Amino acid sequence: MKLLEERIRKDGEVLDGNVLKINSFLNHQVDPQLMMEVGKEFKRLFENEKITKVLTCEASGIAPGIMAAYQLGVPMVFARKKKPSTLNDAVYWADVFSYTKKVNNKICVEKKFLSSDDHLLIIDDFLAHGEAVKGMLNIADQANATVAGVGVVVAKEFQGGSEWVKDHGYSLEALARISDFENNQVHFVGEE
Amino acid sequence: MKLLEERIRKDGEVLDGNVLKINSFLNHQVDPQLMMEVGKEFKRLFENEKITKVLTCEASGIAPGIMAAYQLGVPMVFARKKKPSTLNDAVYWADVFSYTKKVNNKICVEKKFLSSDDHLLIIDDFLAHGEAVKGMLNIADQANATVAGVGVVVAKEFQGGSEWVKDHGYSLEALARISDFENNQVHFVGEE
Repeated sequence: MKLLEERIRKDGEVLDGNVLKINSFLNHQVDPQLMMEVGKEFKRLFENEKITKVLTCEASGIAPGIMAAYQLGVPMVFARKKKPSTLNDAVYWADVFSYTKKVNNKICVEKKFLSSDDHLLIIDDFLAHGEAVKGMLNIADQANATVAGVGVVVAKEFQGGSEWVKDHGYSLEALARISDFENNQVHFVGEE
Repeated sequence: MKLLEERIRKDGEVLDGNVLKINSFLNHQVDPQLMMEVGKEFKRLFENEKITKVLTCEASGIAPGIMAAYQLGVPMVFARKKKPSTLNDAVYWADVFSYTKKVNNKICVEKKFLSSDDHLLIIDDFLAHGEAVKGMLNIADQANATVAGVGVVVAKEFQGGSEWVKDHGYSLEALARISDFENNQVHFVGEE
């Protein structure tokens, strides 16, 4: 997605440890017009998949997730990192390993919001090692839901997550695919 | 907002301790079409206030916040509850007291995203005791930003937050104003 690549080049900051900081438009400050374009692109990519629900993870998945859900005309569910005090009903849990902090975190989704009739589109902001996506796939699996596709705004292709998702048979679409950060510059897959 | 009140009546669940659970369309599963209507309503209410930015708080403020920002044509910033590892720049911190858990939590916003030129619209999903809104007002104050208004999706008018916000001179708009939960039913302000 050209618009997104240009924005990453303009406003992205490459930090130590293969970290791309794009929190001026994606995951702290958010550009809603860009997110709507992201939502339209996910719709274009997945509209033939009979999606019934978008599944994402708080907090940074919510902005792209809700715009994709808006465009597809389906509800969005965001997995929670803590079980809220009002969540007294049965939930599915999954572990999400954090490479940055070297700990296992947990995410949960209330059982009644996922069913075996669902065709889920899993959305997230970043795909790096793929841990958050694996957690959501685990939850989809517990619910016996069909995963119709995985859509991420930015994939860091060199960290294994993209390969894992495709190797496990899922249809993956990344709107910006980063091949490396050589010389502290962002390089996209396929560019000269 | 009639559409919202009807949805609360239809899908809301009143729990012990004056808790309204509406996580089937607002803060776990989210109805993006309803959120877009919520965004339009916030635009109608605040469009003369020269808003430059929407400020909200993760995770449940993001869905209504981004739709309000989309409608107003401005960026949204969501306060984070943990400082992300990539957030190595200067941040504003504020305490948010949790009445449910009786602890102080912290929220933060990177300093560069708020300035004294900003006219902020503060958005949140719920206004009860007002602690999250107070935290965001505190951050706005540290940034010397102007608070042009406070918009919440649901206000529980009997828990003091609404009064506090208005008593401190802020323009407050709540799209659904709940007066009480007598007999485990939702009652809105002004209804017979």
